[in-house]
Amino acid sequence: MSTSRPQPAAIATWTFGRSAAEAAGELLCKGATALDAVEKGINVVELDPSVTGVGFGGLPNAEGIVELDAAIMDGATYRAGSVGALRNIKCPISVARKVMEQTPHVMLAGDNALAFALSQGFHEEELLTPESRRRWEEWKGGRAPSHDTVSLVALDCEGRLAAGCSTSGLAYKVPGRVGDSPIIGAGLYVDGDAGGAAATGIGEEIMRFCASFLVVEFMRNGSGPAEACGRVLDRIASKKPADREANICLIALARDGEYGAAGMRPRFPYAVWTPAGVQTYEAQ
Amino acid sequence: MSTSRPQPAAIATWTFGRSAAEAAGELLCKGATALDAVEKGINVVELDPSVTGVGFGGLPNAEGIVELDAAIMDGATYRAGSVGALRNIKCPISVARKVMEQTPHVMLAGDNALAFALSQGFHEEELLTPESRRRWEEWKGGRAPSHDTVSLVALDCEGRLAAGCSTSGLAYKVPGRVGDSPIIGAGLYVDGDAGGAAATGIGEEIMRFCASFLVVEFMRNGSGPAEACGRVLDRIASKKPADREANICLIALARDGEYGAAGMRPRFPYAVWTPAGVQTYEAQ
Repeated sequence: MSTSRPQPAAIATWTFGRSAAEAAGELLCKGATALDAVEKGINVVELDPSVTGVGFGGLPNAEGIVELDAAIMDGATYRAGSVGALRNIKCPISVARKVMEQTPHVMLAGDNALAFALSQGFHEEELLTPESRRRWEEWKGGRAPSHDTVSLVALDCEGRLAAGCSTSGLAYKVPGRVGDSPIIGAGLYVDGDAGGAAATGIGEEIMRFCASFLVVEFMRNGSGPAEACGRVLDRIASKKPADREANICLIALARDGEYGAAGMRPRFPYAVWTPAGVQTYEAQ
Repeated sequence: MSTSRPQPAAIATWTFGRSAAEAAGELLCKGATALDAVEKGINVVELDPSVTGVGFGGLPNAEGIVELDAAIMDGATYRAGSVGALRNIKCPISVARKVMEQTPHVMLAGDNALAFALSQGFHEEELLTPESRRRWEEWKGGRAPSHDTVSLVALDCEGRLAAGCSTSGLAYKVPGRVGDSPIIGAGLYVDGDAGGAAATGIGEEIMRFCASFLVVEFMRNGSGPAEACGRVLDRIASKKPADREANICLIALARDGEYGAAGMRPRFPYAVWTPAGVQTYEAQ
């Protein structure tokens, strides 16, 4: 059995995930932990108001209020932290990390997630931008909702895996709605003995089928990352009633550094950083 | 291949689950759906103030406020509904069912879960009883917290499976904490093609390992219910750091009506209803 370490790597959802993967990669090069790389990589997207599905500038709920979901998980200890329906905080992944590290709990939700964030030194800010407000007004005029999540899985120089995701959730959702992103096993899962996976798309279907956990389980049982993602999408497609939309895309990174993705939507874009550089791919 | 239907059955956690299993069984006898049997069976425990881990009379959070978690899932359609950190409603499983049936979402949390419940005709009530207040005051004096969840899996006369769980969560938790009970795959999971499972115990460890989903996955791959529960506990025990408590118990009901359970705690009691009657067992 080889004891050589795999090279570090980071994989992220969507074209906007490129900046997250790149920031994570720069940290990994400097010897950062996978956990730090995941948090800081996702922070880049959360703080970018041009990304309307995540953090600052995210699309609001039906009442015009931005509510954020995020989670982070450490593949070495299986510790995780998450926040659901968090308002007025630009970097929910960092609050999720505080839940993991500063409480005995995994998940905090609603007003009390905000109260916890404030107790940890975060500051309340308005998250709605002129652009996200304009889009909300268009929606009230009949435009279809959207849903983009930044999800990131990283492998560090010590062979440790971590995963995270952050989103403003399904645009124009019912207030208080919690999607897949803060749910361990749905929006993300990581097991240092197998690999990590994360999701984007219709959160409700991702939750009903524990999509990310099942990707990791398939990797544990011998599937490569792309095959594992594809098998999960096949299962969902075969089981869900035909009248339910299930536009789901999955990314995965195995413990040996192999990566892959699969999407129900054609040409789902994802970004991969390795020491050779960052590149954007399209899942088949 | 046999086309004969299995007999109806219901399995519930803890000794107090006996009343839930019995109420579910009476409904199943009359031809009720598994979904109705799960909801109405759990309602019996929620409304019983002598059960201090569930619904009315549940133990409060660190601030002395009762916050409830619950979920319900239908094994035929994979639809699910859940509420997290819900206050002032005696029957959270019924609110979870409304989330499933009246919204496109799976989960609502916090103040907005309460707002949704009120919009559906539920009424606010004080959940703290003199007994639960007395226990909270004892805790402030140093008594250790407890955590009991009523979880119920039912198989109806048409061969349909459903599962549900309801709890006031870890006593004296951080306000806003969401445990495993409203998390699909953690506190419960059901797949009509395989079986259903549900959990009770330290919610954070159940969430970190997607315990109920994995029980169902093992049943899908050929394990019997008791074996599947035991294998999940073995995995958790082998992976979690030794310094983390993981008192977890699992129940499972296969699509053919076979049932079983396993617990990390010795002699974990669970109740089973079949047309022959209701009986309480202890998991080995």
